[in-house]
Amino acid sequence: MTMQTLSLNESHGGIQGVYRHPSRETKTDMTFSVFVPRRTAGARLPVVTYLSGLTCTHANVTEKGEYRQACAELGLIFVAPDTSPRGEGVPGDPANAYDFGLGAGFYVDATEEPFARNYRMWSYVTEELPKLVAGHFPVDAARQSILGHSMGGHGALTVALRNPGRYRAASAFAPIVAPSQVPWGQKALGGYLGGDKARWRKHDAVALIEDGAKFSELLVDYGDADQFLAEQLRPELLKAACEKAAIPLTLRRQGGYDHSYYFISTFMADHLRWHAARLKA
Amino acid sequence: MTMQTLSLNESHGGIQGVYRHPSRETKTDMTFSVFVPRRTAGARLPVVTYLSGLTCTHANVTEKGEYRQACAELGLIFVAPDTSPRGEGVPGDPANAYDFGLGAGFYVDATEEPFARNYRMWSYVTEELPKLVAGHFPVDAARQSILGHSMGGHGALTVALRNPGRYRAASAFAPIVAPSQVPWGQKALGGYLGGDKARWRKHDAVALIEDGAKFSELLVDYGDADQFLAEQLRPELLKAACEKAAIPLTLRRQGGYDHSYYFISTFMADHLRWHAARLKA
Repeated sequence: MTMQTLSLNESHGGIQGVYRHPSRETKTDMTFSVFVPRRTAGARLPVVTYLSGLTCTHANVTEKGEYRQACAELGLIFVAPDTSPRGEGVPGDPANAYDFGLGAGFYVDATEEPFARNYRMWSYVTEELPKLVAGHFPVDAARQSILGHSMGGHGALTVALRNPGRYRAASAFAPIVAPSQVPWGQKALGGYLGGDKARWRKHDAVALIEDGAKFSELLVDYGDADQFLAEQLRPELLKAACEKAAIPLTLRRQGGYDHSYYFISTFMADHLRWHAARLKA
Repeated sequence: MTMQTLSLNESHGGIQGVYRHPSRETKTDMTFSVFVPRRTAGARLPVVTYLSGLTCTHANVTEKGEYRQACAELGLIFVAPDTSPRGEGVPGDPANAYDFGLGAGFYVDATEEPFARNYRMWSYVTEELPKLVAGHFPVDAARQSILGHSMGGHGALTVALRNPGRYRAASAFAPIVAPSQVPWGQKALGGYLGGDKARWRKHDAVALIEDGAKFSELLVDYGDADQFLAEQLRPELLKAACEKAAIPLTLRRQGGYDHSYYFISTFMADHLRWHAARLKA
């Protein structure tokens, strides 16, 4: 598990690093960022993984997420992977759309050609990256949590629902909660997993809950000025599924907020405090 | 004084806007950002102007400065102008260097050709922009302060030292304190103002202090891992000048920090609290 350090910047008393490694899953080099707050010597810290949305790399949240101050105060390591494989030979969307292919891995292991070889973001974020991070950073692997935005909110919810024993907390900003029922998700799941919709269900938070998945408690924020709310996000579907399955959901409608990092950064510290309370319980 | 709104995003309970207007001074369209926190109806708020460094536009600090939470808590309006005129017909550096011309206005009114027509950033940030902002936003013009980074730290210090009655507080991150004595400054002041070094002194914080300028109190942070520290920034020159002139200077050496926004964002809230205490005194 080799890893190359691309940059290290002191920030908020800790170290913000950016790293690259050859991924076994994606067969490409993958870049990710890790913030490690100041800690007492020998201390192992809880680790929060943040999954980004369409078009993003690790850089968007690293530059605009405003998570470092809260992570420094709470003693959390913050990991931000890329959203897809990239590089020569990685197939993208033939029409160069922003919502499929490069920058739009949707956190699935593709089964369809020509994507199956490289688009293995599910295995990357749930298996390969956590092991790499645990091998190189002072994390307490028993205390992990996950959050994300939009497509990354979809990723965080599905990862948590399928691994309730591994993640102690999960939350999302403006997540896609039912990809099988919305255009972004139908395009992505159809393209990566094929036309059999039964195979989409394990990558659909609402369908997973309908099929019996459980999680201790979920936190979701969305802005009521989010331009994607009604067509792509549809938080009411998550609310209905959680109510039926008796999964505690804190669903907050934030007045005036849109889909951007101006929204995410506003509530980031609040989510991290919520995670920290559960990671340290 | 017409002004066009390019974007408005709710953030940290206030509104982050980006605006464009035809500038009388630069003879170009100029873009700037303004954050207005939530306020009680009719309230006029103190205004902090942030001047950016080489290569930057308004966008760098707007995205990476982490100022909104503190401004929301403290009730400060935050204004971030661009660093130079831009657009067709604006002369840049013939060699396309990053440290002269476009993105490198150095907060002076150029007297040399071909720059004199457009490069009027001194008058822009001290006269035109404050009037425009006062006309469009709920500012209390009697309570202004200024801060900046690197070239913008130079700008903030020189603007404050020449207008001590107008600005109630001034601070800087990693400022160029003596441009007449360092390569960046010599190139810029020589190019914009010509070879007569006597004319550079009013755009050199250390020279201004040597020539009798006063300010109530200054705050300067720099990182000891800043790659530009020894050659371009030279904070010891400001320390010596302030000591001789009995200007109170809080000069803080921050261990491990570099010249980036990872440094600025770490200490931004601290600077804003320092400004707020003086703006509200």
